[in-house]
Amino acid sequence: MSENISVLGLGLMGAALAESLLAAGHRVTVWNRTPSKADPLVAKGATVAATPAEAVEAGELVIVCVLDYPAVRQVLEGASLTGRVIVNLTSGRPSEAGAMASWVAEHGADYLDGGIMAVPQMIAKPGALILYSASQTAFDRYERTLAVMAEARFVGTDPGMAALLDLAMLTGMYGQIAGCLEAAALVTSAKYPLKQFTASLLVPWLNAMAALQVHWAEAIEAGDHATQVSNLEVNRAGMETLVAAFREQGVKPDLLLPLKAVIDRRTARGLGHEGLSGLVEEL
Amino acid sequence: MSENISVLGLGLMGAALAESLLAAGHRVTVWNRTPSKADPLVAKGATVAATPAEAVEAGELVIVCVLDYPAVRQVLEGASLTGRVIVNLTSGRPSEAGAMASWVAEHGADYLDGGIMAVPQMIAKPGALILYSASQTAFDRYERTLAVMAEARFVGTDPGMAALLDLAMLTGMYGQIAGCLEAAALVTSAKYPLKQFTASLLVPWLNAMAALQVHWAEAIEAGDHATQVSNLEVNRAGMETLVAAFREQGVKPDLLLPLKAVIDRRTARGLGHEGLSGLVEEL
Repeated sequence: MSENISVLGLGLMGAALAESLLAAGHRVTVWNRTPSKADPLVAKGATVAATPAEAVEAGELVIVCVLDYPAVRQVLEGASLTGRVIVNLTSGRPSEAGAMASWVAEHGADYLDGGIMAVPQMIAKPGALILYSASQTAFDRYERTLAVMAEARFVGTDPGMAALLDLAMLTGMYGQIAGCLEAAALVTSAKYPLKQFTASLLVPWLNAMAALQVHWAEAIEAGDHATQVSNLEVNRAGMETLVAAFREQGVKPDLLLPLKAVIDRRTARGLGHEGLSGLVEEL
Repeated sequence: MSENISVLGLGLMGAALAESLLAAGHRVTVWNRTPSKADPLVAKGATVAATPAEAVEAGELVIVCVLDYPAVRQVLEGASLTGRVIVNLTSGRPSEAGAMASWVAEHGADYLDGGIMAVPQMIAKPGALILYSASQTAFDRYERTLAVMAEARFVGTDPGMAALLDLAMLTGMYGQIAGCLEAAALVTSAKYPLKQFTASLLVPWLNAMAALQVHWAEAIEAGDHATQVSNLEVNRAGMETLVAAFREQGVKPDLLLPLKAVIDRRTARGLGHEGLSGLVEEL
């Protein structure tokens, strides 16, 4: 079914979202602060609105993807929201999503907050995922339309949950990136071919280790950090070796040091027999 | 072909290695500081030696898996090494492996240094991997025998290379673990089911992101950190949001802070247009 959809904000991401909706045959109205960004979309059939309010009023489904939550408020302020569904795909904190949900409700609209787990190049391609939270009714109504942009997953009626899980996924990614950067610096210091190391050793190893996180999640949920495999004492000794090897190779182990500090602290408190999952209690 | 193999050190790992070699039909002589640890292996056909020297002399292939490199030296000291192949699977630093290779060569034996990428429970099972470096001749001669314990991969004639790549893989893993612990703390703070988050969102995401590391390795090898996707300035802003959200949820973002500091520093130096791969130059 063809819908009237508005997209406010035509940065790389907003433009990719609008394009995917046009390609799926929807009637798309777009608005951007710098109007020229709309030109390629108009060429593909989009209607351009002169003001944010005009764009909002053209759509039953209004997608906002701008710089931050204050900018969302700015583009929606003064528009007639009543009866519409506002889907906010702007990055932000859970608390901002909660406040926005209340503000939108006060203005008579239904609200979905979304976290986009993809770069613009991935939109409408396999692997792209958008998390949604807040109104289950709005999600159920528009699920198939939203799925045009990326796999659509509803994670709960707490408006901040999509933002929180989005940030938690980025958190895991940033940790992995930090580890890969340190590994790359170490391997480079020894003049071993980095691409070969990464493709044939590091990536398969990280995938195998990531799978173990499901068991750690069970341990954390149960509050039971007993381990048969590799306790904190073993990891403490391993970390000492690691840091000494980094120093000998002339590489700074800075990105790993806070993990080492937490392992040291917890071992010193007599918890060396527990597994690494128990470290979550120190955070 | 059945070989005469000695295994010195019967901790959980050494015992698992000896057991896999016995199961493959080799004649295995074992030694351990606490002799009773040998009993289960003797029941499976191993011969127990009264001293390390006696164990060394019973094998053409001598596998050592003890606490650390000083302990390796202690068990090999005084034994007749001439003409044998010493395979040292003890954890240590590249510099220790280099020194051990020289010492063993002075005593007339061939040397392989190994890094075990597995826990004892994984030995002789799919997924277990041991990296080897130092003598290519020794590796070629015993490759099929070594493959009984775990997939055997030769990574170069630099004696320290197996230890270095082993530590680099652990480094990547520790980074991933740090990220997963922070993610778990954030998700738990919001009372979202952690196992569900981990299995259905975090692990597939980490696997997708790990695959990108091959491209980062190319960028690092080329020294070219241009990006079309997500530059340091975008990541700097994302990290600010992340840290603010952690604070609002009452969770300490400590394990991520050094990565944030490096991103901030490099952005402040005017490199905000580059990708994250360039951070390797700060380490």
